[in-house]
Amino acid sequence: MAKRIIGSTPKKDGYRMPAEFEPQTGCWMIWPERNDNWRDGAKPAQRTFTKVAEAIAKYENMTVIASPSQYQNARARLSPKIRVVEMVSDDAWVRDCGPTFVINDKGGIRGVDWKFNAWGGLYDGLYFPWANDDQIARKICEIENIDSYRTEDFVLEGGSIHVDGEGTVMTTEMCLLSEGRNPAMSREEIENMLFEYLGCEKVIWLKDGIDPNETNGHIDDVACFVAPGEVACIWTDDENNPFYDVAQSAYKTLSSVTDAKGRKLKIHKLCLTKKPCLLHGADTIDSVEGTLPRENGEVSIASYMNFLIINNAVILPQYGDENDELAVRQVKEMFPGREIVGIMTDEVAFGGGNVHCITQQQPDPNGKAR
Amino acid sequence: MAKRIIGSTPKKDGYRMPAEFEPQTGCWMIWPERNDNWRDGAKPAQRTFTKVAEAIAKYENMTVIASPSQYQNARARLSPKIRVVEMVSDDAWVRDCGPTFVINDKGGIRGVDWKFNAWGGLYDGLYFPWANDDQIARKICEIENIDSYRTEDFVLEGGSIHVDGEGTVMTTEMCLLSEGRNPAMSREEIENMLFEYLGCEKVIWLKDGIDPNETNGHIDDVACFVAPGEVACIWTDDENNPFYDVAQSAYKTLSSVTDAKGRKLKIHKLCLTKKPCLLHGADTIDSVEGTLPRENGEVSIASYMNFLIINNAVILPQYGDENDELAVRQVKEMFPGREIVGIMTDEVAFGGGNVHCITQQQPDPNGKAR
Repeated sequence: MAKRIIGSTPKKDGYRMPAEFEPQTGCWMIWPERNDNWRDGAKPAQRTFTKVAEAIAKYENMTVIASPSQYQNARARLSPKIRVVEMVSDDAWVRDCGPTFVINDKGGIRGVDWKFNAWGGLYDGLYFPWANDDQIARKICEIENIDSYRTEDFVLEGGSIHVDGEGTVMTTEMCLLSEGRNPAMSREEIENMLFEYLGCEKVIWLKDGIDPNETNGHIDDVACFVAPGEVACIWTDDENNPFYDVAQSAYKTLSSVTDAKGRKLKIHKLCLTKKPCLLHGADTIDSVEGTLPRENGEVSIASYMNFLIINNAVILPQYGDENDELAVRQVKEMFPGREIVGIMTDEVAFGGGNVHCITQQQPDPNGKAR
Repeated sequence: MAKRIIGSTPKKDGYRMPAEFEPQTGCWMIWPERNDNWRDGAKPAQRTFTKVAEAIAKYENMTVIASPSQYQNARARLSPKIRVVEMVSDDAWVRDCGPTFVINDKGGIRGVDWKFNAWGGLYDGLYFPWANDDQIARKICEIENIDSYRTEDFVLEGGSIHVDGEGTVMTTEMCLLSEGRNPAMSREEIENMLFEYLGCEKVIWLKDGIDPNETNGHIDDVACFVAPGEVACIWTDDENNPFYDVAQSAYKTLSSVTDAKGRKLKIHKLCLTKKPCLLHGADTIDSVEGTLPRENGEVSIASYMNFLIINNAVILPQYGDENDELAVRQVKEMFPGREIVGIMTDEVAFGGGNVHCITQQQPDPNGKAR
């Protein structure tokens, strides 16, 4: 019932990745448990993931993946309306290891099972091994009886792309052209893979992301589509902000490009935190040989841009920062028809991402047109 | 989406377990891998389970559960139309550890998650621990978004009961009254549990099963319902057959009782094998302290009765015995409208059961009336 599709691509078969703002049937998350990444036995992270899952479950179906050892605990912590399914993983970033769903205009849905190498493989990946994570996409598709395409020769994470659903994909050179992804492929070959597997015709290349050492600069901390022809972009006037240059550069690029339909983009500015988000509790993170020791006070990558758009709502990270409320107001202006649900997610940032990184939406192939 | 139902029972809520011959949406199996039960690294068993799964998949949806370590192998061995989902287990008997599905007449379906103790718990159970198996029923219900009832104070295996879907349940005293199940409960209390959780009103008690040392005499090796008012019963004229007495006794009981509707039963005789089914390859079964050593030539419980009824077909064990063909003919007479699919399953018998023990049908709550 869930086949591997061999010898074709979504584009050839009439499929496209819909924009995140298009209708969804549900959402996926993975229960965090890795003691060498999450502080205090991952319990603060589990509480925060629970809040995010419960928030999403108010708007659409929610499935949380849990390992055999955490299944019972996850089941007990999450409310009954959330489905819990068993699956081993290497960490909790389903945006990046999960499937990218593509749909056609006949109610069909398929998955793209990108090759996953933990953000850089043996070159500059964040952990080894990643074999369990690399199977997550297929296993999700199996549960849903969804056929999938596998890109055995092409590495990509879901967090490194955003699409408008109308032919445009946005990404960063820092990530997609990095040595740890597809070093043997040219920029044109990589563009062609995006076209074929996302059903797109145009790539908007931003230069850098804000976390060169973690995801190599995923787009989902920098900019996203909020509607056809409309994007959001991180913004700060503070030249001392560590992300000032990236924000300026991204804004400049987005101001100058057109999308696949030839439209100039309307750009919504989204603030950054006033103060950096600093790790605490580092002494409770398990030590593992060969990884960088974690220290209290190290800067966690905390971007309001890492929000998730779902049916009728946006789940927005909050950091206990002075700019939290401003971010809510700005996002509300981008999405006047949706509720903005702010959730304190510094514990997710401590682990290396935020709401968008820990979720994967499943689009509704029978959803109403945009 | 998949709730635990507290403070009620299927009967109180208008649910009943349908007969196996009623319409089904699909079927579940668990991929075998236990090296201390299955010979030769479980590879012969995996081949045989594959044959059974593929045979069923021709008629209805088929899902196979595989552990993390065997997921990729199971996925590769099984054809794409079979769904493979990940789940840890303690062995491969989903009939006994899986949910008993109950339906109502409004298209509703729920699961009964019986407490499972590996056929006798610490009294005379077959392995320890069994904690993974005891979670299988709930995890299956979760995947399917099916609410479930848990009988925390009542142990039962699916293979110890057969129902006609019209108020009658058939079982054995040897199993349900055994010390390893619910020793603190009276026969009447046990009957009441069956009534409440299967939506029945009458129990037909046979005395013994044919495998006192394994399942404590499960009904599914001895007799079953083939239609309302019609049963099949094992039969032999050979007084030297080790199961002669059990068969005689079961036949006599079934001849004398009426079902919940007050009907006398029409009884179809089903032959036994001419020769016993003898284990070989015992030296390749891993040795584990505290379990009985396995020996070549030991008798495996091999009953043709351990067939599975599915949509439009019956999957029937074959043993390479002189009576294999006779069994096919007899089952064909019981089910004139169904194809009889005989499969050589001695490798399943070596592990302690057969087709019925390794499968769990999922009824169709919207199926046409019988």
